[in-house]
Formats: sequence, structure tokens, C-alpha cells
Amino acid sequence: MQAIGEMNITPRILLGPGPSMVHPRVLRAMSAPLTGHLDPEFLQLMEETKEMLRAVFQTGNFLTIAISGTGSAGMETCLVNLIEPGDEVLVCVNGVFGTRMSDIVERCGGKLVRVDVPWGKPVTPEDLKKGLAKSKPKLVCVVHAETSTGAWTQLPALVNLAHEAGALFLADTVTSLAGCPVKIDEWGVDAVYSGTQKCLSCPPGLSPVSFSEAAMKKLRARKTKPQSWYLDVSMLEKYWGQERVYHHTAPITMNYALRESLRLVLEEGLDARFARHERNHKALVAGLEAMGLKMVVAPGERLWMLNSVHIPDGVQDAAVRSLLLKEFNIEIGGGLGDFKGKAWRIGLMGESSTRNHVLLVLVALECALTKQGFKLKPGAGIEAASKLL
Amino acid sequence: MQAIGEMNITPRILLGPGPSMVHPRVLRAMSAPLTGHLDPEFLQLMEETKEMLRAVFQTGNFLTIAISGTGSAGMETCLVNLIEPGDEVLVCVNGVFGTRMSDIVERCGGKLVRVDVPWGKPVTPEDLKKGLAKSKPKLVCVVHAETSTGAWTQLPALVNLAHEAGALFLADTVTSLAGCPVKIDEWGVDAVYSGTQKCLSCPPGLSPVSFSEAAMKKLRARKTKPQSWYLDVSMLEKYWGQERVYHHTAPITMNYALRESLRLVLEEGLDARFARHERNHKALVAGLEAMGLKMVVAPGERLWMLNSVHIPDGVQDAAVRSLLLKEFNIEIGGGLGDFKGKAWRIGLMGESSTRNHVLLVLVALECALTKQGFKLKPGAGIEAASKLL
Repeated sequence: MQAIGEMNITPRILLGPGPSMVHPRVLRAMSAPLTGHLDPEFLQLMEETKEMLRAVFQTGNFLTIAISGTGSAGMETCLVNLIEPGDEVLVCVNGVFGTRMSDIVERCGGKLVRVDVPWGKPVTPEDLKKGLAKSKPKLVCVVHAETSTGAWTQLPALVNLAHEAGALFLADTVTSLAGCPVKIDEWGVDAVYSGTQKCLSCPPGLSPVSFSEAAMKKLRARKTKPQSWYLDVSMLEKYWGQERVYHHTAPITMNYALRESLRLVLEEGLDARFARHERNHKALVAGLEAMGLKMVVAPGERLWMLNSVHIPDGVQDAAVRSLLLKEFNIEIGGGLGDFKGKAWRIGLMGESSTRNHVLLVLVALECALTKQGFKLKPGAGIEAASKLL
Repeated sequence: MQAIGEMNITPRILLGPGPSMVHPRVLRAMSAPLTGHLDPEFLQLMEETKEMLRAVFQTGNFLTIAISGTGSAGMETCLVNLIEPGDEVLVCVNGVFGTRMSDIVERCGGKLVRVDVPWGKPVTPEDLKKGLAKSKPKLVCVVHAETSTGAWTQLPALVNLAHEAGALFLADTVTSLAGCPVKIDEWGVDAVYSGTQKCLSCPPGLSPVSFSEAAMKKLRARKTKPQSWYLDVSMLEKYWGQERVYHHTAPITMNYALRESLRLVLEEGLDARFARHERNHKALVAGLEAMGLKMVVAPGERLWMLNSVHIPDGVQDAAVRSLLLKEFNIEIGGGLGDFKGKAWRIGLMGESSTRNHVLLVLVALECALTKQGFKLKPGAGIEAASKLL
């Protein structure tokens, strides 16, 4: 074969659904020499990571660790450990990630009860009540922040309904964690997974998870082994715990990165970080609407970190995204599933959520839309956004 | 919580069972800014990685990709995709990793036929014949390089036996790949997995896998979905293939690292790399034996990259390894399973396999053993090793 040359990646402004941009301190952490995964210094690093993850999840859960795979591996971890064959499992589906959970529930031999909610809408207590009226699930699964649509589901009332029905509650916080409040203990969430490449602004590759005592009790009472060895929490608990029983070899460098990104999150402070995400989101929406674009999600139901906007009639999806990438080095996301070709997804996650990025993406979109013949008032987007920044 | 300080990892000489040391070019590649996982430049990087993985596996297999998890995730990928519930699966067990495969086979609902071989011995054609005499497996699983013992199993005759019996052949090459010949096509191996943190000298976090046409045919003829969504090869094929169908978000930075480590492997050249591993192994063994230590594995059956040596009577395992780590910053591995407390495992993998490391670990061991009251002739180890370096 012909020799492959040196890597030459163009620096991009990442305003898609993830990965988000990564702070130079995190990049630098990854260039540290490797250490052994059972080295006392690495064990200390694992302890520190668990402590910081607990702070970000706002939980005291003992089992709060990072799974050695991406967010989807975290989803699978929660499901394969909490479901035994034949268990009834209720999944609320309002986008791609609820659909994915449903798929995995069936692969686990769970009896799936699916509550479908229109894409772009959050899951409401009424939706869940309908599902609970026709089932007696052992587990209720809800996506907090639907990355495929930008809808924000309020969890507390849903958790209460699930608990009243005698079910455990599983939350997907892949996109929400570290971008808006995620209060595992206060809300009573029993199991939760997230990803590193969204509002934590760490490269993809790990999936933080946390299990409550009730979830651990269910897990310990299993009659069968979880179907995955790699994601078996009872074994991972011993690897991340004081026993340090060899399981797999933890991705050392990714754990360096996660530790540094968690430090950055806590240095900024959760409240300040959430306020920054809210402010930049509001400015972006004001700008997009002033340009004549329409948001997919209704006001009050919109995520701060993922903004879905309808593609106007007559405007070509691919041409616009390609121009943004080639002429501005800006990545935004296309639509998924029901929204393929119909919406753009503009992410403002972690390090990507800045004043400058809001302004830049509005300028770039104005340029691209104008070339597509879309009529707009020049400068209106920037003017509206600037007032809020 | 109290703020967690800056990361301060002591540089180590990694001579354990993995991770191995990483070339500065690989560390530098990981500090490159993140790009999107569907960015045209990242898609190009995935293509280049597949091409280089094929060169290292010595295969033309179309489906040759890196799984987004560590070596154990690669093991699970091969098994969950190739096994359907009720399938008879023969696993040759001569250490920890055959044991692990057996565990996963049962979690997949496979009917396990286990052929046990003494720890420290390779699997022979006679061993496999015994197993085939009492079963009619659809899949035969063998570990090429048993990291828990240092035994090297020769695969070609085993592959032929499996094929004659109508079974597919799965090989674990986690520790062997890029350290000794691994010839997937010439040997006729149907499915193979490896890890990045051994002789590829890339941080842990990805698992290269490759599937032959026969394996893909079995996979496509499945009546049931594989039990893992995250590791479903039919979906991963579309993500890594021309379709680029969104599956999970690939670990961008780990893929940067793998690409650079593969470039380094191919720049050195496979034959030169294998010769280096062989030379350093022989020198280390000569040194250890001259010091009066005894190897676990018989001559002719020893791996070049993982050297198991018996801990002499009266010498304390933990004290020696602790001294090596604290006074020399050298990590060597302890024993696993049957060899816990009874053997050390000295890895000479990838960047860790150097003349200087062989000399240094012999000096350090001489110091530690002498402190433990073990009688040896000072300098004998170094002298014997130097002749071969």
C-alpha cells in the first residue's frame, strides 16, 4: 500500500450535535505519557474522577463511574444491567434516542411498552400516565434532552409517576449534563447515563453513568448474568472500587481528558455554566427568528444546548451545510429520522457555547441563505442576538 | 467538595501486560483539535485507518475496522455477532482470556464446549482434535497470544481443523498484533480482534477487528438481532462504510491516535518490528535465566512480547513490584488467575520493546531480588542479555 501521510485536520468550529469543542487544557492532558491502569496514581485519578462526576450529576451515588465506551455504550450499560428477560419496560419515545432505547430493550429480552410522543415535543406527565395505564413496568426510560429534536423534557414529575407505579426510572442525560441542571438525587432518578462529547466538552469515548441504591438492589438480585460482559456493572463496580479487580484495561488517555474537563466544569461552576448556555441559546434563537427562520420546538420546551430550526422551503440543506463547512469551517448538524432534510441542529455545548460562535454562525447562515435566494433583512439576526449577549 | 488539582502523572517505564509506552508522535496527534465524526476529513481518516489495519492484519477483508471500546469489547463484538442462541461454540482455554471468551459465549446463549489446556502451555492440534471429537461446533475460538501466561499458540493447523469440521475460526490477537506475524488471510482466520494498547503502542480505547466473507455470510444469515446494539457489526459496517449511516459518535481523538500508531508500525515495517520484538525477548530471557530465574513457558512456546517468569521461593511478589515502581518507575505485571502471586509478567510490547528497557529491568530486578535475599551473581543478567542485543 501507499504510505499514508501526516494527519492534517482543519480546525473546525463545532456547532453540531457533538462532539463539541475541547479546551486546550483537555487536549494537553491527553498528551501526557501513559501510565498503567492499576498504577496507584491512576487509581487516585479514578477516585478523583468519580468524586467530580458525583458533583456534576449532583448525586451521592457510590456507583458513579465512566463506562469505557461512548454515550450509546452507557445507554446499553444501564439497560442490560437493569433488565432481566421478560421484564416489562416502558420507553417514552420522542426522537432518535428513545427509539434506540426501545431497540436495546428488545435485544435484552425486555417486554417493550412504547409511548410515542410527536418528535419535537417533550414527554409530559400525561404521556407517561397513558403508558402506565396499560402496563406495569419495572423500568421507565426517558430522554432528558432529545438531541435529535432539541426538546427538553422535565423529569421530576415523571420520576414521581414511575415510582408511584413501582418502577425504577432511567434518564438519558447525554446532551443535558453540564449544560443545564441535572439533579439525580433531588429528582430521585435511579439510573442515568451521559456522554463526554457534549456539554462536558471532552472528546467522545467515555460514558459517565450513575446508579442509585434501588438500582443496585435490583442489579444484585438478578437471577441471570447481564448479557454483556464488557458492560456488567457488578464487575465494573469491583474494578472501579477498592478491590480493583482486573476487568478490562481502562482507556487511560480518555480518563486523563475526562478528569481535566470535569475540573474545568467545576472551576466555572455549574450555575454559571448553565447561565452561559441559557444566554447564548436565547441570543441564537432571537437571531434566527429575526432572520425569518422558525424553530422546531415551542418556546419553553427548547434545550439550551441544541437548537433545531426548520429549513425554509426552497433552501437546499446540503448546500448550506457544505458552504458553512467549506467557507467558514463551521459544522452544524443535519436532521435525523423524521427531521432528515427538514431541520438543522445547531449545538451550543460546553466550549462551543460562546458569544463569538453565536455571532459567527448567524453571519455564516445569513450568507448561505442569501446565496440560496432566501429573503432576509441583512444584519437583522446579528442585531437581535447582540442585544441579549 | 474540595477542588481537585492539576494532573501530575509520573512518567513510567511500562513493562507490564499493557498499556505499553506510546510514541511522542501519537501523544501529539491526540492534542489536535476535535473534528466532527461525519466531517469529510474524518471520513477520510477512517478510510486510511481501515487500509492500514488491513496491512497490519495482513488481510484484504472489507470489514476491518476499530470498535469503539477496548480489546474486551472487540472480543464481545466477535462473539455476539457470530453466535446465535443454541449455537455450539468450542473455546480452547489456556489462560484468562479463553476463560473470558467462555463466559461471554454463555451470555450469548451459545452452547459452550470448553477444551482446557494447562496454563502456560499453548493449544495444540491434539487439544483441538479432542474437543472436535465430542462436538460439532459452529465456531472455534483460540487465543493466539495468552497475555495471562505468555504462551504462543500456532494457529494455522488449528484453523484447518476447525474448517474441516465445518466451523468458523475466531482468533484473539490482542497481544500479538504488530509484535509477531498475524496473517489473517494466509491462515484463513474468519474473525479476529485485537487491542490498541499492546504492540500497536497506542493508548487503550479501541479494538481493531476483521471479519472474513464467510463470517459476514454467517452474520447476514442471522435470524435474530445480535444482543448488543453498540457492537452490532451490521450497523457498524454501514457507519464505517460508504453509507456513513449514523450509529454512535466515534471516539475522534482515539482514532487520531490509532492512525498515527499504525503509521509508525508501517514505517518501521512489520518484519523489522517482529525482529526487534524477538531480539529483545531473547536477550531478556537470557538475562533472567542467567540471574537464576525460571521462565513459566517452555522454550519454543514463548511469546516475544510477554515474558512470564516464576517468582522464586521466599521472594515477596508485592515488595519487588513496589520497589521497581517506586525506585525505578518501572511497571511490570503480576500474575493472573492460576499464576496470581506466583509469576511476574514482563511486557516488551511496541515502544516498550527496546534494548535500554531490557537492560534497565534486569538491573532493577537484580537490585530488588538481592534486597529480598535471593542469591545471584551480580551483573550476570546484564552480561548474558548484552551479548544478544
